Amino acid sequence: MNDTPLPRIGFMGIGIMGGSMAGHLQAAGHRLTIANRSRGPRVDALLAAGATWADTPAALAGESDIVITVLGFPQDVEQVWLGTDGLLAGAKPGTLLIDMTTSSPRLASRLAEAAAAKRCAALDAPVSGGDIGARNAALSIMVGGDADAFGRAQPVFARMGKAIRHMGGAGAGQHTKMANQIAIASAVMGVAEALSYARRAGLDGEAVLAALAPGAAGSMQLTALGPKMLAGDFAPGFMVKHFLKDLGIAVAEAEAMGLALPGLAQSRALFDRIAAELGGDVGTQAIIAAYR
Amino acid sequence: MNDTPLPRIGFMGIGIMGGSMAGHLQAAGHRLTIANRSRGPRVDALLAAGATWADTPAALAGESDIVITVLGFPQDVEQVWLGTDGLLAGAKPGTLLIDMTTSSPRLASRLAEAAAAKRCAALDAPVSGGDIGARNAALSIMVGGDADAFGRAQPVFARMGKAIRHMGGAGAGQHTKMANQIAIASAVMGVAEALSYARRAGLDGEAVLAALAPGAAGSMQLTALGPKMLAGDFAPGFMVKHFLKDLGIAVAEAEAMGLALPGLAQSRALFDRIAAELGGDVGTQAIIAAYR
Repeated sequence: MNDTPLPRIGFMGIGIMGGSMAGHLQAAGHRLTIANRSRGPRVDALLAAGATWADTPAALAGESDIVITVLGFPQDVEQVWLGTDGLLAGAKPGTLLIDMTTSSPRLASRLAEAAAAKRCAALDAPVSGGDIGARNAALSIMVGGDADAFGRAQPVFARMGKAIRHMGGAGAGQHTKMANQIAIASAVMGVAEALSYARRAGLDGEAVLAALAPGAAGSMQLTALGPKMLAGDFAPGFMVKHFLKDLGIAVAEAEAMGLALPGLAQSRALFDRIAAELGGDVGTQAIIAAYR
Repeated sequence: MNDTPLPRIGFMGIGIMGGSMAGHLQAAGHRLTIANRSRGPRVDALLAAGATWADTPAALAGESDIVITVLGFPQDVEQVWLGTDGLLAGAKPGTLLIDMTTSSPRLASRLAEAAAAKRCAALDAPVSGGDIGARNAALSIMVGGDADAFGRAQPVFARMGKAIRHMGGAGAGQHTKMANQIAIASAVMGVAEALSYARRAGLDGEAVLAALAPGAAGSMQLTALGPKMLAGDFAPGFMVKHFLKDLGIAVAEAEAMGLALPGLAQSRALFDRIAAELGGDVGTQAIIAAYR
């Protein structure tokens, strides 16, 4: 039997999420080249375990069969993929590039076109499950792009996530993630309003949560964030500033479609207020502070 | 051993919910006196099985140890309890009166005071679980009122429901139900917005539901109503007109508390539009029609 070597992977964005994800790929035996805005313990750990450092996205892409980016904002993704010394400037034909940042669906389509022009393949593959999902290789991965590229990426996705879904062509992964964030935006607002009402009515918050959770009002937002809202514990599971980034993309996409989403707009306005009052580093459960 | 006879029960409001609930009490051996705005098969079935008909609420209360009402609107409850020939006009001292209508918390407090003035006890005990929950004696029952009255009612509640919770003093059952409806109001709006966005983005709706359901966007509203929204199936599980009644009570209570609930207000505005365009008899999943 002929052992095909595992694809060499370039990984950009070694943050809380990316650090865990890259670690899983390294542990699975992939040769890893990494790059990041800054050095730090996460980068050092990967280098100590054999990863190679690249000074530019172009250099990283040139040494990789598959490139994965987990960045902050769409403008970061655009710069890293399309800029001077960007990924596509250095990628050899046949390279598969995957953006796992939660980013703009329209940008994902542009990246796929730019990759195709370089005879490379691209996927948009945002995730849900947070840092705990990343640490436990239990992320949910929503993928857009062509089916061949998806098939090629699947063994790599399987090292990082559990529910891996091909949602359609370029941008479909990002669109699915936007649908996810849109549902959450109003759901978490509903939980905050229900618990604010209950508090004003003099009810015991824990008893209300217990009464609501098994019924038609039950939700992950209620179960996961309701107790933190009651306790005034705003330590972040998912930070308001990151959620606001996602909601801004969702609003822009919906506007481009001519689709009015008033629940989303209302929720975003409340989160804007929270970010202004408490800063963006609090968790999304801090929306309850808008009702004080 | 001395067999204490089961309390005689007066039951007013033999509708889809009340018919099932009264039937369970009758099957458990309670002597039943019933009254309803109109005769019909549900009333006839209870009478055929031995129930007694009462011409007025006062007459019904006079023959009962425990009175239960399951009516439509708060004004119906007020009329039936407090009107001429109303329940409290006929109830003997010591009678326990229970309103299981979803109704106004402030009215519940007034009813409890009026009952106490007649040396009767009162509970507010709205339910969730719908007609299926009523049929299967699996309702969730949220109870407000004093603890002695709750203890006395518990064996009767146990014939109709499963999760039976004493939430506090008079009105606390209604307040809990309002918190439940407030959480639902925004959650169902979020599901409709997520699926409307997904449709416009060209995604497969079923695939989006499957991707969202296990994660942070997961909810009972998504799981129960998402597929109906996608199918355009607006057959009612819970009718828009009844939800609008509940939301109107919630808005009035929140305003009385000086509490602004913009998500609730937005959701209510959308349901108002749906009721105007499609009528109030469609199910709450019809909110998705507001995004066409």
